[in-house]
Amino acid sequence: MYPELDTPALVIDLDVVRANVAEMAKAAAAHGVGLRPHIKTHKIPELARIQLEAGATGITCAKLGEAEVMADAGIDDILIAYPIWGEPKLRRLAALRERARVRVSLDSPEVAAGLGRLGRQTGAPVEVLVEVDTGMHRLGRPPGRPTADLVAEIAAIPGVEVVGLLTLAGHAYHSRSPEELAETARREGADLVATAELCAREGIEIREISVGSTPTARHVAGVAGVTEIRPGTYIFNDTAMMRLGVATEETTGARVLTTVVGRPSPERVVLDAGTKCLTSDGTGTPGWIRAVGLPYLHMEFLNEEHGVAHLGPGHARDGELPIGTRMQLIPGHACPVVNLFDVAHGVEGGRVVTELRVAARGAVL
Amino acid sequence: MYPELDTPALVIDLDVVRANVAEMAKAAAAHGVGLRPHIKTHKIPELARIQLEAGATGITCAKLGEAEVMADAGIDDILIAYPIWGEPKLRRLAALRERARVRVSLDSPEVAAGLGRLGRQTGAPVEVLVEVDTGMHRLGRPPGRPTADLVAEIAAIPGVEVVGLLTLAGHAYHSRSPEELAETARREGADLVATAELCAREGIEIREISVGSTPTARHVAGVAGVTEIRPGTYIFNDTAMMRLGVATEETTGARVLTTVVGRPSPERVVLDAGTKCLTSDGTGTPGWIRAVGLPYLHMEFLNEEHGVAHLGPGHARDGELPIGTRMQLIPGHACPVVNLFDVAHGVEGGRVVTELRVAARGAVL
Repeated sequence: MYPELDTPALVIDLDVVRANVAEMAKAAAAHGVGLRPHIKTHKIPELARIQLEAGATGITCAKLGEAEVMADAGIDDILIAYPIWGEPKLRRLAALRERARVRVSLDSPEVAAGLGRLGRQTGAPVEVLVEVDTGMHRLGRPPGRPTADLVAEIAAIPGVEVVGLLTLAGHAYHSRSPEELAETARREGADLVATAELCAREGIEIREISVGSTPTARHVAGVAGVTEIRPGTYIFNDTAMMRLGVATEETTGARVLTTVVGRPSPERVVLDAGTKCLTSDGTGTPGWIRAVGLPYLHMEFLNEEHGVAHLGPGHARDGELPIGTRMQLIPGHACPVVNLFDVAHGVEGGRVVTELRVAARGAVL
Repeated sequence: MYPELDTPALVIDLDVVRANVAEMAKAAAAHGVGLRPHIKTHKIPELARIQLEAGATGITCAKLGEAEVMADAGIDDILIAYPIWGEPKLRRLAALRERARVRVSLDSPEVAAGLGRLGRQTGAPVEVLVEVDTGMHRLGRPPGRPTADLVAEIAAIPGVEVVGLLTLAGHAYHSRSPEELAETARREGADLVATAELCAREGIEIREISVGSTPTARHVAGVAGVTEIRPGTYIFNDTAMMRLGVATEETTGARVLTTVVGRPSPERVVLDAGTKCLTSDGTGTPGWIRAVGLPYLHMEFLNEEHGVAHLGPGHARDGELPIGTRMQLIPGHACPVVNLFDVAHGVEGGRVVTELRVAARGAVL
């Protein structure tokens, strides 16, 4: 299995990536909404290009540093879905705006004030999307009156132009059934649309209704009034998406190639990939890490450089998965996994065809 | 607070580091054991130098790639506490042995066979420590007869020289009292010493008894027969060490500088540091992330770029910790946090004095 690679290594199946990208582009087109993929999942300009060529209208980044890397690669329509605060970042944003169309999200008049100064200094208002809390309880105020008041307050700041509302229904990740997931997505969209209507009645027109997350994307795209979806994980998928029923082992595109380095007992299999390759995201959820094609191998725990798994009944014997055996692990959460590697190895039809630099790795600033 | 740094940023207090390093060196010297710090915690050659200058006899690495970085910096006595498998790594190990004294650990005849080939080819046996499972249930066989049999099997392989036994009592991290911790440490040492005596009676002399982990280090150093301790985390400490009673807020040396970027409600405080700065290690344990000097701020959850905390009773009000406020977060597990940053900022007396490159970041191969 990929003998030209030493392990552990990050392997990206480009056939799977292209199929995932095409399928989401088709879903967005079917509903007539824009698709603005979140590149935090891959952090690789070449993969953002694949998304844009398949019909994405632009990209989403979490941090300014990611946006700079993508702009360096010639991508010129970027939403930074994060409140930008402080003079050093505002200066960088000003420079970025000279080479790309940039929108940002925020949830406070304080952050809007800084952006307003920038907009006035440059003579071009900063286009912002106001973040709404549709149940994740991270940033944003609740939909309806609290958000409408915030929108009015921000819209009154010179140098800022409110162009949209934005949300991420991250709590959808905890859905326990397809019905619950669909209902969360429907409410995510409906709450934003109703809030936009409230704003419009009070004289502020909201042009964009931008909604997030891979699990809700296909559902929320169909809500009347939604203009844009921002899924990220769909390009690779992971065991969290499998558990939510929106992916299968076959549609997972980012995997960690690993080798058995210890067989201390007939049951125990020790792998050379731990949290430094897979993170601790999802730890404790049964099956949060899966070995492709080996359903009888169960991950027990990860340390930094070790994955400790045990063989299920009927397989716990000497000679099964001996030292030196290679396998591919599907991560529990693809996005932070990619952030641990400097390079990913692109494969097609079981062969390594290219090396991809994870150019926006570690771009937390 | 460190106005010259934008956030999020990794800040290392060099005064704290020197004090932690000196204190552990003193403990090792008091018991007459060698101190071979695990550099996975910092991954920074300059900090390994501080440890060596304070009396460490050498260093421990988890992976060959880390050892290569440290050898590049002139460090010439290295234990790679990991089974090295496969021709590419064996070739790299051969090259590394030309510029440093290298020992490796293992727990199988299969891995020993590869090392034996290397030892025979180069005319210099590879010195190995056999890993023993003293309760962590990762690598190694149980102490006593199972390990003695393994040692005999490995010692019979030409080109390999068994010089020691090695263990890591990682399960000590789950201790619920100082007494339980001390007892785990005592047993960790005693089990290895008894196993070494069994090997000696059967004609294989074990020179090194090498035991690991920061929480057990001070206890196990006092067990007669132990020759070496390999703590790692002690250089920085973290909230896990605080919970085990071996560190305080004052002795934590690696912190993430962060800024409040959202105050969506009087209770909620959103920070610009998430799992991409702090990892998900320790998630769910109350107080797994602490804000220095702010005991009334409680971390709720981390997403990749957000830390979401709430203010305790009496502090949940507008104007408390407004947007733009800076603070330092103590991570739940220092080692993987450092692995997320390309650079760390060294501080002394509240001032930034140097930039340290995390040279062995991402060295999983």
